[in-house]
Amino acid sequence: MSRFLRVIPVTDAVAAAEKIAPPVKTEHVPVEQSAGRVLASDIVADSDIPGFDRSIVDGYAVRAADTAGASDAVPAILHCTGRVAMGSPDPGHTVTHGTCVYTPTGGVMPQGADAVVMVENTEEAGETVLVRRPVSSGENTLLRDDDFRQGETVLPAGRLLSPQDTGVLAACGCVSVPVAQKPVVGIISTGNELVPVSSRPGPGQIRDVNAPMLAAYLREYGCIPRIYGIVRDERESFEATIATALPECDVIIISGGSSKDDRDMTSAVIAGAGEVLVHGIAIAPGKPTIIGLIGKKPVFGLPGHPAAAFVVLITIVCPLLDRMLGLTKPRFRTTRAVLGESIPSQKGREEYIRVRCADGIAYPVFGKSGLLHTLIRSEGLIRIPSVCEGFEKGMSVEVILW
Amino acid sequence: MSRFLRVIPVTDAVAAAEKIAPPVKTEHVPVEQSAGRVLASDIVADSDIPGFDRSIVDGYAVRAADTAGASDAVPAILHCTGRVAMGSPDPGHTVTHGTCVYTPTGGVMPQGADAVVMVENTEEAGETVLVRRPVSSGENTLLRDDDFRQGETVLPAGRLLSPQDTGVLAACGCVSVPVAQKPVVGIISTGNELVPVSSRPGPGQIRDVNAPMLAAYLREYGCIPRIYGIVRDERESFEATIATALPECDVIIISGGSSKDDRDMTSAVIAGAGEVLVHGIAIAPGKPTIIGLIGKKPVFGLPGHPAAAFVVLITIVCPLLDRMLGLTKPRFRTTRAVLGESIPSQKGREEYIRVRCADGIAYPVFGKSGLLHTLIRSEGLIRIPSVCEGFEKGMSVEVILW
Repeated sequence: MSRFLRVIPVTDAVAAAEKIAPPVKTEHVPVEQSAGRVLASDIVADSDIPGFDRSIVDGYAVRAADTAGASDAVPAILHCTGRVAMGSPDPGHTVTHGTCVYTPTGGVMPQGADAVVMVENTEEAGETVLVRRPVSSGENTLLRDDDFRQGETVLPAGRLLSPQDTGVLAACGCVSVPVAQKPVVGIISTGNELVPVSSRPGPGQIRDVNAPMLAAYLREYGCIPRIYGIVRDERESFEATIATALPECDVIIISGGSSKDDRDMTSAVIAGAGEVLVHGIAIAPGKPTIIGLIGKKPVFGLPGHPAAAFVVLITIVCPLLDRMLGLTKPRFRTTRAVLGESIPSQKGREEYIRVRCADGIAYPVFGKSGLLHTLIRSEGLIRIPSVCEGFEKGMSVEVILW
Repeated sequence: MSRFLRVIPVTDAVAAAEKIAPPVKTEHVPVEQSAGRVLASDIVADSDIPGFDRSIVDGYAVRAADTAGASDAVPAILHCTGRVAMGSPDPGHTVTHGTCVYTPTGGVMPQGADAVVMVENTEEAGETVLVRRPVSSGENTLLRDDDFRQGETVLPAGRLLSPQDTGVLAACGCVSVPVAQKPVVGIISTGNELVPVSSRPGPGQIRDVNAPMLAAYLREYGCIPRIYGIVRDERESFEATIATALPECDVIIISGGSSKDDRDMTSAVIAGAGEVLVHGIAIAPGKPTIIGLIGKKPVFGLPGHPAAAFVVLITIVCPLLDRMLGLTKPRFRTTRAVLGESIPSQKGREEYIRVRCADGIAYPVFGKSGLLHTLIRSEGLIRIPSVCEGFEKGMSVEVILW
């Protein structure tokens, strides 16, 4: 084991992670529970939607030509021949020159009509209707395939489903939705200084904050986190915990062990059971990261500093999870902002700077990566590429929002 | 019942909704499950965090003054007197002039030391350490209260907890977190034209898309949705469903019934069992919205057009849910963009326009509010105030992201 890490560029580390991503596994969930999941197959409209020409207002279905020139002073005078009942298969009425049919919102357009006059623009006098505004052909109607055409792909595989998407799935009769299974991610915390959240730390000890934080992030990212607790820096108990976690998980994250001794042990344990692919990434914070493979299961060694663990989770682990989910676009949101302060950066490594955003301006939140408060007093990260020596105040930057 | 609605401004409708919000109810959840919930009490640090002066690198704890002027050519030469063990309560070593102590990342700072030299900038030769870079006092260390001071409020009540926040809660020993209970929101679909998602619609019929869509949005918003299915436009079955839902829910949403007949029935049923507070809002889409109260339970009548239902959910119902959750900031995200096309608007009503965002430019997605595809081919909404006659291309606008 070398005393120093052999660091590789971030893009190489991401490629190494993506390469070992297990394939997408599919399952079916009820449409009401599909939002937030990743669609596993293209969804095709099973019929024209809405399926029939509809009125989109309460009003009178007319021949638009009959309303030409209508006004308050000189209304068009039509004869109302009936009413369309909601949900009825056949309006049972035909609109001819000089006649109209009352049609509620969503009602089937009667034969012969090509527009609907809003009830607000009419006046009823028995069977006579005065129309005070002209309508153009198609006005206040939807045609049978205005929303989707039968056979059209309405949602593509790899899409992160929104609440609105579930509406579209429902419209297509998709009761049970094919989605990517949630990856099960095991989290093992290492470090002799760690105590559980329920303990009061003694001198030299700290509570394990990374496990709940990583678990919460992974759950929001669409994974099932499993916390395996704190492992002492003893090789046997470490190996035993990994052996327990491996069959239960798709991916394993080892949190902490960022001190050299721990690093050596983490990397030795992974090497003993499998292979260490990457040990050291040209990223700040997060340099002492390990990527390994045990059997076919990816294993990450994340640094112990919370901000470093978080940055590596987002930049290196999430691209692998995206592959496992079949996601075609990264799940996190970005926004553009103007940099409120210059940021120096060291050439040769990618730097991720936490920023606070206010009124479209991003202010760097400087602070050592061991500090939690920088993570909660910031809205996201900006990335300074390894070829840059920093970003100047006033630049337009992309912010990866938490 | 008047033939037309009596519309009131959006701000009045929001105030009416907020006024009838039931009070926040509190429960406790494990810290690992607290992300996405709203904090119900201020959280105070139970001790200084990290609690002791720590090294944040692997290296040698030194007196910074001893490294002044150190370089590759003229290294400072120090005598290493020992190593700090991780998690050990007492480093058991004191650094004096001319000496140093090896300290792993996270280790307790030895007495007498005020900085740490990274191992990468040193060379070991037995018990002698050559230091090739100077450090300043405090460098590569965290002080015992650098993150949080004992008694400090670390997270305020009303905050929507992020994954990072769960890390802070863990650091403070908050095993069980006080959060707002999730409001239970009943969803009743009305309309004789509706069929369940599992049915193939006949002529004049459409599938009920609003219930799954509203349920998915509400679940993401931190509520528990309960779907009560489709009620025919018959007063008795409608009243029976409301009577079933009322004791099981905190809020009831009646979806559909936007045609005049249905509106009359929805409003008559609410008036029969309680009180109609608002019937008609100066908003587009979404005008025929009802706000009512049965007992102490808020009841909303949402329009049937999916886009209209969605806009009213976001603009009118969410402010009430925010109150019930004790949220101090709205849950949805916004971003700024430049408008890519002019949008005309009718003075006297607030208009909500769906927009597609690309490269910081927001393009309006025009389309009738009965069309689902406008909801999935857009990234969010922009709001045109009722005093405006439109927005000009090139304006900077705020986008409420889906």
